[in-house]
Amino acid sequence: MPHLTIEYSANLDPSGDLAGLCLRLRMALLQTGLAEEGALRVRALPCPHYAVADLLPENAFAALVLRIGAGRSPDDKRRMGEMVMQAATAHFATLLAAPHFALSLDIVENDAALSWKSNSIHPRLRGKG
Amino acid sequence: MPHLTIEYSANLDPSGDLAGLCLRLRMALLQTGLAEEGALRVRALPCPHYAVADLLPENAFAALVLRIGAGRSPDDKRRMGEMVMQAATAHFATLLAAPHFALSLDIVENDAALSWKSNSIHPRLRGKG
Amino acid sequence: MPHLTIEYSANLDPSGDLAGLCLRLRMALLQTGLAEEGALRVRALPCPHYAVADLLPENAFAALVLRIGAGRSPDDKRRMGEMVMQAATAHFATLLAAPHFALSLDIVENDAALSWKSNSIHPRLRGKG
Repeated sequence: MPHLTIEYSANLDPSGDLAGLCLRLRMALLQTGLAEEGALRVRALPCPHYAVADLLPENAFAALVLRIGAGRSPDDKRRMGEMVMQAATAHFATLLAAPHFALSLDIVENDAALSWKSNSIHPRLRGKG
Repeated sequence: MPHLTIEYSANLDPSGDLAGLCLRLRMALLQTGLAEEGALRVRALPCPHYAVADLLPENAFAALVLRIGAGRSPDDKRRMGEMVMQAATAHFATLLAAPHFALSLDIVENDAALSWKSNSIHPRLRGKG
Repeated sequence: MPHLTIEYSANLDPSGDLAGLCLRLRMALLQTGLAEEGALRVRALPCPHYAVADLLPENAFAALVLRIGAGRSPDDKRRMGEMVMQAATAHFATLLAAPHFALSLDIVENDAALSWKSNSIHPRLRGKG
């Protein structure tokens, strides 16, 4: 944890710079101080088929879902969401200034009893400091 | 809101007309009267790798997840689901008549406290009427 | 049900053999004795854009989400998760032995009141036995 998945309309390639967005959101998550570097997994998935709002060809969306482990305080979760949303809003400032773009973020908490992980990156990064 | 994501086995391209399905499901959502046009984001994601049921090469699936904001009544949610499922069932009538297709729909509600959005389409469409 | 979706960083193609993983996890689900063959839908989605941990180019992830119907006991859910995770761990043994891979599994339960399905595979397979 955390996992951040971005589904987006394929008309954002390449101008939306989704690779750049992944980097930016990874940094935002790191800067919350609430996520360990080795656990960060930000990714973006283009959707080749879509129907957005009134179907203008320039209509586009990016839908972010942040999946986190249970146990953070409501304040911490709100702060995480705000920092991620702020970074995404900055990334898409030009698109949001035109009347064809919808950005969203939802946080989903996992059930600790139904969650498994095996991460070989952690030992490497924890050993660094 | 609402977001409707369709994951499907890539063997449905192109005969399954997923672009047409997106249009049809957008219309179904609009006709519920429970969703604002500017908020509609229907999309479909092909899955290049899959293992369905008994692994016959013609086995296929479409798995719909509708993500909505919290606060609708149980009746409204049931009606939304039924209308979307009806439209998807009509779209896939031929496939459902043969013994190799699995269609599903699940509705997931967001937590309003952990949901953010920025939508530049709304002002344009709200200004229309 | 059950649905098992694997999101993975695209640098796992083709060496990660995601098609083989789908087959292996389908078999693991079948062997739990808790899932009907006709209902199995395992699939994998490559993510072309991603930012993982400290951004080394060899960093990679596979994130599994298993979506099941409500009503199974905590013990059965735990057993399902353990068997799926065990199969995924075996599949990725080489990657997990190197310090650049993150594997995860989360189980999510559907709300029976907000779930619809139409499956034309079931009659064919149920008729077999």
